[in-house]
Amino acid sequence: MHEEAARGQPVPSTRWARLMNTEREQPVGVAVVGAGYWGPNLVRNFAAHPGADLRWVCDLSRAQAEKAVGRYSTVGITDDLQVVLSDPSVEAVAVVTPAATHVAVAMACFDAGKHVLVEKPLAPSVADGQLLVDAASERGLVLMCDHTYCYTPAVRAIRDLVRGGELGEIQYVDSVRINLGLVQRDVDVFWDLAPHDLSILDFVLPDDCAPMAVAAQGADPIGAGRACVGYLTLPLEGGGIAHAHVNWLSPTKIRTTIIGGSRRMLVWDDLDPQQRLSLYDTGVEKHRENPGDTRREAMISYRIGDMTAPALPEHEALQGVVGELVGAVREQRAPLTDGEAGLRVLKILEAANRSLADDGAAVKLDGYR
Amino acid sequence: MHEEAARGQPVPSTRWARLMNTEREQPVGVAVVGAGYWGPNLVRNFAAHPGADLRWVCDLSRAQAEKAVGRYSTVGITDDLQVVLSDPSVEAVAVVTPAATHVAVAMACFDAGKHVLVEKPLAPSVADGQLLVDAASERGLVLMCDHTYCYTPAVRAIRDLVRGGELGEIQYVDSVRINLGLVQRDVDVFWDLAPHDLSILDFVLPDDCAPMAVAAQGADPIGAGRACVGYLTLPLEGGGIAHAHVNWLSPTKIRTTIIGGSRRMLVWDDLDPQQRLSLYDTGVEKHRENPGDTRREAMISYRIGDMTAPALPEHEALQGVVGELVGAVREQRAPLTDGEAGLRVLKILEAANRSLADDGAAVKLDGYR
Amino acid sequence: MHEEAARGQPVPSTRWARLMNTEREQPVGVAVVGAGYWGPNLVRNFAAHPGADLRWVCDLSRAQAEKAVGRYSTVGITDDLQVVLSDPSVEAVAVVTPAATHVAVAMACFDAGKHVLVEKPLAPSVADGQLLVDAASERGLVLMCDHTYCYTPAVRAIRDLVRGGELGEIQYVDSVRINLGLVQRDVDVFWDLAPHDLSILDFVLPDDCAPMAVAAQGADPIGAGRACVGYLTLPLEGGGIAHAHVNWLSPTKIRTTIIGGSRRMLVWDDLDPQQRLSLYDTGVEKHRENPGDTRREAMISYRIGDMTAPALPEHEALQGVVGELVGAVREQRAPLTDGEAGLRVLKILEAANRSLADDGAAVKLDGYR
Amino acid sequence: MHEEAARGQPVPSTRWARLMNTEREQPVGVAVVGAGYWGPNLVRNFAAHPGADLRWVCDLSRAQAEKAVGRYSTVGITDDLQVVLSDPSVEAVAVVTPAATHVAVAMACFDAGKHVLVEKPLAPSVADGQLLVDAASERGLVLMCDHTYCYTPAVRAIRDLVRGGELGEIQYVDSVRINLGLVQRDVDVFWDLAPHDLSILDFVLPDDCAPMAVAAQGADPIGAGRACVGYLTLPLEGGGIAHAHVNWLSPTKIRTTIIGGSRRMLVWDDLDPQQRLSLYDTGVEKHRENPGDTRREAMISYRIGDMTAPALPEHEALQGVVGELVGAVREQRAPLTDGEAGLRVLKILEAANRSLADDGAAVKLDGYR
Repeated sequence: MHEEAARGQPVPSTRWARLMNTEREQPVGVAVVGAGYWGPNLVRNFAAHPGADLRWVCDLSRAQAEKAVGRYSTVGITDDLQVVLSDPSVEAVAVVTPAATHVAVAMACFDAGKHVLVEKPLAPSVADGQLLVDAASERGLVLMCDHTYCYTPAVRAIRDLVRGGELGEIQYVDSVRINLGLVQRDVDVFWDLAPHDLSILDFVLPDDCAPMAVAAQGADPIGAGRACVGYLTLPLEGGGIAHAHVNWLSPTKIRTTIIGGSRRMLVWDDLDPQQRLSLYDTGVEKHRENPGDTRREAMISYRIGDMTAPALPEHEALQGVVGELVGAVREQRAPLTDGEAGLRVLKILEAANRSLADDGAAVKLDGYR
Repeated sequence: MHEEAARGQPVPSTRWARLMNTEREQPVGVAVVGAGYWGPNLVRNFAAHPGADLRWVCDLSRAQAEKAVGRYSTVGITDDLQVVLSDPSVEAVAVVTPAATHVAVAMACFDAGKHVLVEKPLAPSVADGQLLVDAASERGLVLMCDHTYCYTPAVRAIRDLVRGGELGEIQYVDSVRINLGLVQRDVDVFWDLAPHDLSILDFVLPDDCAPMAVAAQGADPIGAGRACVGYLTLPLEGGGIAHAHVNWLSPTKIRTTIIGGSRRMLVWDDLDPQQRLSLYDTGVEKHRENPGDTRREAMISYRIGDMTAPALPEHEALQGVVGELVGAVREQRAPLTDGEAGLRVLKILEAANRSLADDGAAVKLDGYR
Repeated sequence: MHEEAARGQPVPSTRWARLMNTEREQPVGVAVVGAGYWGPNLVRNFAAHPGADLRWVCDLSRAQAEKAVGRYSTVGITDDLQVVLSDPSVEAVAVVTPAATHVAVAMACFDAGKHVLVEKPLAPSVADGQLLVDAASERGLVLMCDHTYCYTPAVRAIRDLVRGGELGEIQYVDSVRINLGLVQRDVDVFWDLAPHDLSILDFVLPDDCAPMAVAAQGADPIGAGRACVGYLTLPLEGGGIAHAHVNWLSPTKIRTTIIGGSRRMLVWDDLDPQQRLSLYDTGVEKHRENPGDTRREAMISYRIGDMTAPALPEHEALQGVVGELVGAVREQRAPLTDGEAGLRVLKILEAANRSLADDGAAVKLDGYR
Repeated sequence: MHEEAARGQPVPSTRWARLMNTEREQPVGVAVVGAGYWGPNLVRNFAAHPGADLRWVCDLSRAQAEKAVGRYSTVGITDDLQVVLSDPSVEAVAVVTPAATHVAVAMACFDAGKHVLVEKPLAPSVADGQLLVDAASERGLVLMCDHTYCYTPAVRAIRDLVRGGELGEIQYVDSVRINLGLVQRDVDVFWDLAPHDLSILDFVLPDDCAPMAVAAQGADPIGAGRACVGYLTLPLEGGGIAHAHVNWLSPTKIRTTIIGGSRRMLVWDDLDPQQRLSLYDTGVEKHRENPGDTRREAMISYRIGDMTAPALPEHEALQGVVGELVGAVREQRAPLTDGEAGLRVLKILEAANRSLADDGAAVKLDGYR
């Protein structure tokens, strides 16, 4: 049924096959370092992907690592990173440790000649992220960011629609990512949740529509010592605007992004599996043809047309992440969400920090791309 | 059935009876000036309310005025304001003309000794609004703002919950008011839509939780000459934050406000008539009892409890507006949404203008209350 | 904006203009008899429609009639049907009295030479309904049923889609019409609610897809003396099936109809103004081409394609009812929902009564069309 | 967070702990026979449950069995049932083969002294099901039906509410289970989908509210050779009615059950993870206290109160199934969903077959309990 479903949607299934790298070849040996909250998801997806061969799960707590693979597993367990790094069958390492340790662990992997997949955010600072990008580049190794959402069928379709011009000029992007979430010990709500929205923004927007600045507004109404409710505003090249609402204190879970374009508009509701994507043949436009016309109101036209919800395949995003890692390693190429993409997200987060400290004043994003 | 429905909800029906002023007395003679977009709604509601006697509908276009009352009406039609003002049976006038004319029309009404209901926003500037407030005060006349949403059963219930302490300390208020709306000729999206959110905020928040500043971010991606997409952020006394998203360019209509409190949280979805209000017995709290405890993570506790959707009566908000006007006139008292309330909304809108001009920097709200 | 909206939808606006009969001609003089629950809606819509001239509202209770027109109306009020019938300016009468009185009132109207619009159900029995159909036919007068839903933009679009073949062969129609409704004194839930579903079914189904029989299942769990929860099942010519769930005891309101076709399927959710109609390019088909093929499972194919929600105009259904009445009177033609349509609904309701009495056994619908 | 969540809901977490059988004891050795569509879910849940020790996965296709455990598993794989049955470490066998083979496989298990969990439906006929019930009883072995939904937190809560009297007398149960589903080779839509609804009905209804008869209406509009759209109606002792709509041809997926009671009503929407259960403090009642009162309409009263959505824990249902099997084996007791429960479902399905063959006439359920 799902094979059939793929027919109706805009991402050709052949491209998905390539993205998933399901063609039979020698699988890539991998290890997962860090078996806390997110690690087990990568463990499960490496184990299920035909292009990968999961060799080790490594965690300072062996019990954690054992729990991640379950009681019936043949996968190697260790609490010693050196065991992983000295195993020649391991070609790539997924670093799923706390953000503060990403640099140390990833640099050790690079020094051992391993390709690296890093959990978001890439690093705790732009400087640290740059270190990783440079290290990978110098050694000719793959550095990939686990920007998971970029591998969902919905975001793939959005990218194709936006970059393919189906929406016309982008007018605004409004993203809401809120729920009753675990208040994190080491990061605020911006660093915890906004990387999702920022990496998606980076992934789907055309090159001539980049963020130019960021203003951040936050609040810590529970006295947690860091922002628990946050808003990011990013003016875009071309006159548009992007905005994200991230919130750990919401009683209801919302994961919705609206993108307004001059030709069409779309709504992505990630919590509605029956209609994740709604594409409206709707528009508001100011006509510029008659510059002499003084009747300003006559120059704005509305168009309300049909809405289409494209059929999307139901692939787990992390299968796409694993496939892209496998493909990048095999083909010695940059992955779709490479270190540079992770670095761009860090640049916005750091600028947001400065904006927060300056009472919400806009901070320019120089050298963003 | 609706009488029954009222039982289950937090606003006692006796109070509603008073709010609606349905007790039999001599009705208050009223006139509606302005029969454009909103005027006909007031015409219909004055005509339906037992406490009001609709004498005149006045518009520069007699055809507009005639259309507002229909072909079978005995209500007086005129294009001359003086006709209305010189009719001694008219005690109160609803001013529903374009905002730029509010001051001139309302001042003429005051000079003729009439009470005045003004469409939102009260005036095009704080200075103009202050003129109206002062004029009403000097003459001992009622000045009421048509902050319609404050008279919906949902907002009444929210006010009771918030001000009654049911939600605990207010952590944040997040409001979204977007749809494909008519781009206005004379006002931007802030002045068009945000008065709704700001008047509701003013109505429901406790006195010790007032906005302290405002930062405004806007965009005009269609080149309309004024902001069509806008975001307002207002830090609140006590550490909370309020935020509003107003947007004329959205393909989907959303009217949702979330209020997070330390004891409970609520979601108001004005487009869901079957469940407008959802009250979550849910909270995130930092405990302050153990100041010597260094395990920071242990001090934050989550509570996820039941959700309750209180039964609300189904009264049309404008019936409440008319009832409150009638009551204020009869009882020679300030209405719930008086000129001062309208003025507070103008103060925020003006400060938002300054913030917009200053690239989104926060502007203090001195002398807000 | 609504004019623009009409562009995107399948009912050409020219046809709507004709349906609404908004071209300027001498308006048709009308009267409304019965000002109880539904009458005031017709009063309001006759008063608003340019093709009608509302002369009288008649009710045994003058107070009821006065309430229906309001305090400022010039429309005539009477409690005497003869006053209405003897007024030569009245060309058509809307009969909105209790169903048991439809025959007497409508026959009096016909005898006075008036065209008649009758509230659903047309009459309390097939025999009575036939009397009305025959009387109108003999006198050359219009007999129209107020099958309101048939004049909604959604049902018009469904009819065009179904009868135009867009859905292919109709496989099933499943309708749910439930809420906490007033338990009626004189009719059970079938006669109260099912006329909506049955008139829609009659309106949208192609001629070769008529109901062949009906089975009815009901329950009276509160001891009201008549069914309060009911289910109708109607096998259709061609192998399909129609089913309706009507219920006065549901805590939640649902108004949803699903129509499955061999080429496409649709869902109509009348309570979702933003997406009333969803058209799925989806199908399940058994292939018959390879009769020799023994692999039965290979012969069934699935197709999951995009979903489209056509933009629909937002016209009030009763404006369409009034327009159709006006058009039929002016053009001396049968209205879209004529007496025969009302009679077909009665035939099913009577057969359902027999099925109920026979423990749910199917009752054939002979002579349905 | 989930532990916290459990606090607010009606099933005490201690009972869940017992249900899940998470106390440390020697795990029960189990095997899964059948690794097709459903088997892998049981494999995954046995592997994850601390009370079970998964020894074997058996399938006629070794490849299928290997796929079910994955590439890194130490669980035994075999295509020979005897290997499983002769392993003394296997105490219980899950039979997840096609329904037609349940009897043969389960009887072999009983003969080998193994406890048995059988996928629904228990057997292809009442006679076969009775064989299994008798065999288990004679040998003192556990026979459990995998009525998965009965182990969801939602259905557990519904059972507590209904059987605890919170809803008052049950007026009706309306269940909709439709989506575009795989047309099955060997069973019709009743035998495929209705076991879910019937097992839930059996689980939640009080003993004095049992189904008395069943009427079945079906259609095969695609010519598949068996019903693809079906309706079951079951009059209940006490005057209520139960109804189920099962459908393989629906473009939209719906899993909703409404239960009306004299004191309260509830809606279970299994597809809304944020609000699965809605409990309405709403009722319609006929008062019986004034038997002499002739004003019938005055005796029916409506009550519309608040709606409450109880917080439910988020446990996977199959963990509950495994836990109950483990508990029943350890404690030598009948499981919550024992062979008798499976047999009652079969009795209704067989009667439905007879009703279908008799054009939908009601078939009595003699000896149901």
